[in-house]
Amino acid sequence: MKIIVIGGGAAGMSAASKAKRVNPDSEVIVVESGSYVSYAECGIPYYLQGVVGHIEDLLHYPLSEFTEKRGIKVLLHTTVTRIDTLHSSVLLNNGDVLKYDRLIIATGSRPKPIDVISDRTISIRSLESAMRARNLIEKSKDVTIVGAGVLGVELASVLAESGKNVKVISKYDRVLPQLDEDIGKIFHEYFSSRIDVQKQSSLKSAEEDRGRVKITTSVDDHECDAVIYATGIIPNSEIAVEAGIKTGDRNAILTNGHMETSEPGVYAAGDVATVRNIVTGLDEMMPLAQIANKAGRVAGSNASNSEMVFPGALGTTLVKVFDYEVGFTGINESRAKALGIPYEKTLIKAKSRANYYPGKQDIYVKIIYGKNDKRLLGAQVIGTDGAAWRLNTIATAIFGGFKVSDLFYDDLGYTPPFGPVWDSIVIAGSVSMRE
Amino acid sequence: MKIIVIGGGAAGMSAASKAKRVNPDSEVIVVESGSYVSYAECGIPYYLQGVVGHIEDLLHYPLSEFTEKRGIKVLLHTTVTRIDTLHSSVLLNNGDVLKYDRLIIATGSRPKPIDVISDRTISIRSLESAMRARNLIEKSKDVTIVGAGVLGVELASVLAESGKNVKVISKYDRVLPQLDEDIGKIFHEYFSSRIDVQKQSSLKSAEEDRGRVKITTSVDDHECDAVIYATGIIPNSEIAVEAGIKTGDRNAILTNGHMETSEPGVYAAGDVATVRNIVTGLDEMMPLAQIANKAGRVAGSNASNSEMVFPGALGTTLVKVFDYEVGFTGINESRAKALGIPYEKTLIKAKSRANYYPGKQDIYVKIIYGKNDKRLLGAQVIGTDGAAWRLNTIATAIFGGFKVSDLFYDDLGYTPPFGPVWDSIVIAGSVSMRE
Repeated sequence: MKIIVIGGGAAGMSAASKAKRVNPDSEVIVVESGSYVSYAECGIPYYLQGVVGHIEDLLHYPLSEFTEKRGIKVLLHTTVTRIDTLHSSVLLNNGDVLKYDRLIIATGSRPKPIDVISDRTISIRSLESAMRARNLIEKSKDVTIVGAGVLGVELASVLAESGKNVKVISKYDRVLPQLDEDIGKIFHEYFSSRIDVQKQSSLKSAEEDRGRVKITTSVDDHECDAVIYATGIIPNSEIAVEAGIKTGDRNAILTNGHMETSEPGVYAAGDVATVRNIVTGLDEMMPLAQIANKAGRVAGSNASNSEMVFPGALGTTLVKVFDYEVGFTGINESRAKALGIPYEKTLIKAKSRANYYPGKQDIYVKIIYGKNDKRLLGAQVIGTDGAAWRLNTIATAIFGGFKVSDLFYDDLGYTPPFGPVWDSIVIAGSVSMRE
Repeated sequence: MKIIVIGGGAAGMSAASKAKRVNPDSEVIVVESGSYVSYAECGIPYYLQGVVGHIEDLLHYPLSEFTEKRGIKVLLHTTVTRIDTLHSSVLLNNGDVLKYDRLIIATGSRPKPIDVISDRTISIRSLESAMRARNLIEKSKDVTIVGAGVLGVELASVLAESGKNVKVISKYDRVLPQLDEDIGKIFHEYFSSRIDVQKQSSLKSAEEDRGRVKITTSVDDHECDAVIYATGIIPNSEIAVEAGIKTGDRNAILTNGHMETSEPGVYAAGDVATVRNIVTGLDEMMPLAQIANKAGRVAGSNASNSEMVFPGALGTTLVKVFDYEVGFTGINESRAKALGIPYEKTLIKAKSRANYYPGKQDIYVKIIYGKNDKRLLGAQVIGTDGAAWRLNTIATAIFGGFKVSDLFYDDLGYTPPFGPVWDSIVIAGSVSMRE
């Protein structure tokens, strides 16, 4: 059995490792266009900040872990230029043709194309691009970030913490538009008291001029030393499309619970592939590291004829912004409206610790649930001192199909230093029960 | 409708408030033997430490919140000496007889009787006893704690942090015997490197002598300034037993899902009452603040003819011991063995943050699950930097009836400062799946 994996990121190496472990006699080849495999892209902001010292620190494992210990063949600096499903082969950029019994596409994603490019503009994806970005940022004082999604606000906070003057350009009326307006406003206020934010603004031009960048936005003209784009990503699915493999949401490759594509024997995982959204039942692109790792494992296992079924995901996302822990999972109000799902919502503010215990902080919890069945559909949490894990606990509840009453009765441990006796989660459940 | 609540602690005030809210026309009377209602007993260790300044800080609400705002009648310094279910009345220690339509017993618990009592021995339960204890501890340097359960290790850590020389006497071969031997040993090592622990020891005598206490244990003789008993509690259920109400586990009052006792119209909640253990299906005493609050609310609602059903609990327990977060939920190995439940177990060690992110700490996660159905039965977590909320997340999974594979696929958010991409929870699930 010969298994070819295109892409050596989280999903690809997870798939390759699993495929080989399940069937040690198989030949597993990873084709990676860059210089590294098994890299932690989520760590790039912290590498740019300088908190992570060396780019190699972002490798989960050295190459030898895969090639020597796990017996996987890795072709670096190699690109697959064509998939031929009829002959079960891939064409490499060096002209070689490799036959496969099973193919796993884990080509990931890349930043959306941008109009304005110069030596002082940065679009971050690969480790190679991160090294160039760090080099530029180290020499910069004024940094303008275009985009105020998860990556944008994360980058803004880490760069501000390391002493940069940061400006954020958001095309929306607030940062982090994944948060609903009610809780989003609270976060926006927190963020914009620390970072200069241009709302409802877009970049018109950015021109290099004597080591600086002159920027024109729809709101103002300003100068900076570096421009970072954080305007979203698109899947690297072209090669699959050309091979006739079906794509769906945002052009990501459609997969079933086996992470198999429309082409039998061809699997996909990671940013390039859809997964089932447990709440909506729709196949969606969810470019998140943990999903990539798990879906990669499922793809690799099935490619080696050992069945695993990916049950879907919620898109649970966490980001640290200064000392705020921000997270969301499931669907938000605008998505519920777009899908015509009747819902109700509860937004509460609570303390992170017992009232009498020092160090308590505010935590805001919002939950969205079905109007009729009271089943949880989504949650958004912001705050310090444990907000992130409260979001994860609610995500677990959504994953488990809890109703709001289950959230109230959920037996969470309590001790004064870690929470009040009525924790924010319990209160959110209680308020939603109208009890 | 006249509702009498015996006991003004968490369960009693929760029940009274809910009963009155559901039916504002009802007369709700709380009979409390002490000077306070709605007190946070879980805060007493921190009051003894001095982190909580005043005893009044431990009151969730002032008395007027209940009497004036919520319209509840509160009789302080008053004891119910007899329940007469035949005539639906209670006899008070002042000779009054009060008729009731519904009765809620929330008399709580008290420390187990102890042999050795002096002016320098402390058994903590009420706020009044806590004030006396703090007075003694403030004048003490050497403190001996008898008992190494949750309260014992918590008190030891807070008093050591405030500069006392603490010695702990455990009758077991390690502290916190609720933890299984494998993970318990790790905790014991951590604890005993900070606190002088006498294992397999018991107190034989304690005699006051010129302002000191001379102690003889089964292991040694030593002196100290104060002795604290943390040897467990028993329910204040005698009054119910005398009225013919059925009791079960540890003599706690048996209740059904309505928190109703064997006597129709008589409810019980809090430490004095059993709740259903979701994992074992057995009715158990679970003397925990959050359960008391929720079960109290359920009792109060049903007493006012508005149905609520308590689904049971897991006994999820958290305690902070120095910088360690320690928690357990569901059943442990010894309980599984005692009940003849076939089980398997997984104990893993993981990091609290991404490998490359500063400040990562060790987290140990143990899960116990059914040998055949792989359903989660219990968990134990120790470590710093978010161990407590990982335990709460697993508790949520157990509450939701998750199998180990659900724990693996659970869509937990990930960002480097708050966890590794393979979090301890995911790893525990993965290892248990044998995938």
